[in-house]
Amino acid sequence: MSTHNIKTEWNGKMKFTANVNGFPVTMDTTEKGGGDNSAPSPKPFVLTALSGCTGMDVISMLQKGRKEPKSLSISVEGEVTETHPKQYEKVHIIYDFQAEDDHSEAIIRAVRLSQEQYCGVSAMMQKAMPVTWTINLNGTQIFTNN
Amino acid sequence: MSTHNIKTEWNGKMKFTANVNGFPVTMDTTEKGGGDNSAPSPKPFVLTALSGCTGMDVISMLQKGRKEPKSLSISVEGEVTETHPKQYEKVHIIYDFQAEDDHSEAIIRAVRLSQEQYCGVSAMMQKAMPVTWTINLNGTQIFTNN
Repeated sequence: MSTHNIKTEWNGKMKFTANVNGFPVTMDTTEKGGGDNSAPSPKPFVLTALSGCTGMDVISMLQKGRKEPKSLSISVEGEVTETHPKQYEKVHIIYDFQAEDDHSEAIIRAVRLSQEQYCGVSAMMQKAMPVTWTINLNGTQIFTNN
Repeated sequence: MSTHNIKTEWNGKMKFTANVNGFPVTMDTTEKGGGDNSAPSPKPFVLTALSGCTGMDVISMLQKGRKEPKSLSISVEGEVTETHPKQYEKVHIIYDFQAEDDHSEAIIRAVRLSQEQYCGVSAMMQKAMPVTWTINLNGTQIFTNN
């Protein structure tokens, strides 16, 4: 059994610093929430984890197929419930690739494999809410399941 | 409907930088995974989000009750599946407080309210896996549901 461990220290007011694989990660909240707005709030780190997890899957698969894109940006939108506990109830991911036009099928396949077989963060989130995605290549939408 | 948005850029190899509420958050992976091990890997950011979310709830409730602790550290352990998609299948949180001994009941109550009513990250994770917690006060265990 493999485990991941993080340890987070409270640093006064609403500031918390996690030690993640030896790297410090600071969280804070808005002034309205009693913080100093000095760092990201905790919840969007879930969306951040999702973007990095699927991004690494997709780049790795495309690199292995010698179809590395010129660039990739991943936007993640999480719809938050109105009532407590305030949580994401739907997540949509937009992948924006700059790449050779004829890599379109490989890109669609890599994203699908990440979302359906490899990305552990997405698999966890899919147990709790719908996760959908759109793929744009050179500014043109080539796939969506939203 | 409120939404949270993050945007993540690929920076070559396995490095990704997210823009989270205007703050940069960098992710990378190990050399074995094709990265430079220059930043945390994505998945533990889920545990990080959980620690910050529940930590802010608990501190906020204790502050409102004029029972702010001297210190709080939160360790989160996630058990990872052996097979793809590699994901957390069980999470345990250890809260270590230094505080007045007679704040014990208030501390137990604040953690319970966070886990059962307020922490959106925990609520999401509880839909996907068991989430349990242990509370230590001044080095003595005062609660566990593990």
